[in-house]
Amino acid sequence: MDQSSERDRLVDAAYRTLVSTGGASLSVNDVLQAAELSTRAFYRHFASKDELLLALFRQDSDQVAARLRRAAAADSPAAALRAFVQAMLRITADPRRRQRVLVMSSEEIARAKGFTAERQRYHALVQGELVALLERGRADGTFPLAQPSSDAGWIRAAIQHAFDEQISGSGAVTPNETAELLTGFALRALGARDAETAGG
Amino acid sequence: MDQSSERDRLVDAAYRTLVSTGGASLSVNDVLQAAELSTRAFYRHFASKDELLLALFRQDSDQVAARLRRAAAADSPAAALRAFVQAMLRITADPRRRQRVLVMSSEEIARAKGFTAERQRYHALVQGELVALLERGRADGTFPLAQPSSDAGWIRAAIQHAFDEQISGSGAVTPNETAELLTGFALRALGARDAETAGG
Repeated sequence: MDQSSERDRLVDAAYRTLVSTGGASLSVNDVLQAAELSTRAFYRHFASKDELLLALFRQDSDQVAARLRRAAAADSPAAALRAFVQAMLRITADPRRRQRVLVMSSEEIARAKGFTAERQRYHALVQGELVALLERGRADGTFPLAQPSSDAGWIRAAIQHAFDEQISGSGAVTPNETAELLTGFALRALGARDAETAGG
Repeated sequence: MDQSSERDRLVDAAYRTLVSTGGASLSVNDVLQAAELSTRAFYRHFASKDELLLALFRQDSDQVAARLRRAAAADSPAAALRAFVQAMLRITADPRRRQRVLVMSSEEIARAKGFTAERQRYHALVQGELVALLERGRADGTFPLAQPSSDAGWIRAAIQHAFDEQISGSGAVTPNETAELLTGFALRALGARDAETAGG
């Protein structure tokens, strides 16, 4: 087996093990059993269990960031912003992805040494996509009032809030309706000319 | 001593004890020593340590909510929104209040049975003030684009984000500058006519 597929098998096995324990404490032995690999194989790729947990978190972060990047590539900045918000909120409507979110926000991963920096990296990725999107809209006149660097922070906070409400089940409306309300709010703040009608 | 001042003394003593331990595990004995009161006095007012911790959190929530309510009472809705955002962010600029925030967000309080409901109550108080403010602006024409119930959620999330950044020290600008950027963003979303110039 080549090195990268061995590593992927360990990361996948860590995920499956966390799912089966509901995100509770992870045992490296359980991971090795699930991956059908040896302790020696483990240490070829990771110095510790925490490194494995951070690799799992990074794999997930990069997948989410790639999905957001594709959404943000839509032709018009307004359509890109809508697709971006929808892409985040649709995660909460898919049972398999919801389960991934719950594992990624489990205590076991949050406790891993280095997690704070890893989560900051993820937030910076999302923020970077949003800043680029707002700058594009500002440059082509679609978002005449945008202040990209600060506005991206407020919009990201609002998306995170909507996301958390949908995950916890405290959201009053569906993910799609939430995405429309939030997109409309953001477009108004950015001065999008179709802001008043684009919410439909 | 009358009953209410005895209860206040216990709540104040709990706060001082948490400050002195940096928010670590609270001992009822330490609280009784600090309050110069007996175990019997304690149980006249609280069934458990957790009840005392929730009473402390509620006291703080009600003080913050009262401060926000005064801010939101400004004559014009736009001035009220600015004062509201400033009132929240100024908390982060005052060493004594920062200390209160750190205690209120300590593990010891977060672990208390019933804390989730108590925190929801606090968020609902803040949200209620914001909804009322946006409805006032919508009614008098100051916020022609406002969708009060959903917009209040996005604005509250953005305020919380700015607040957390200031508390953690990761904010790029001062609390006052942050308040101005966020107020400007919100006013634009609400369609405030002076939105483009009101940020100065």
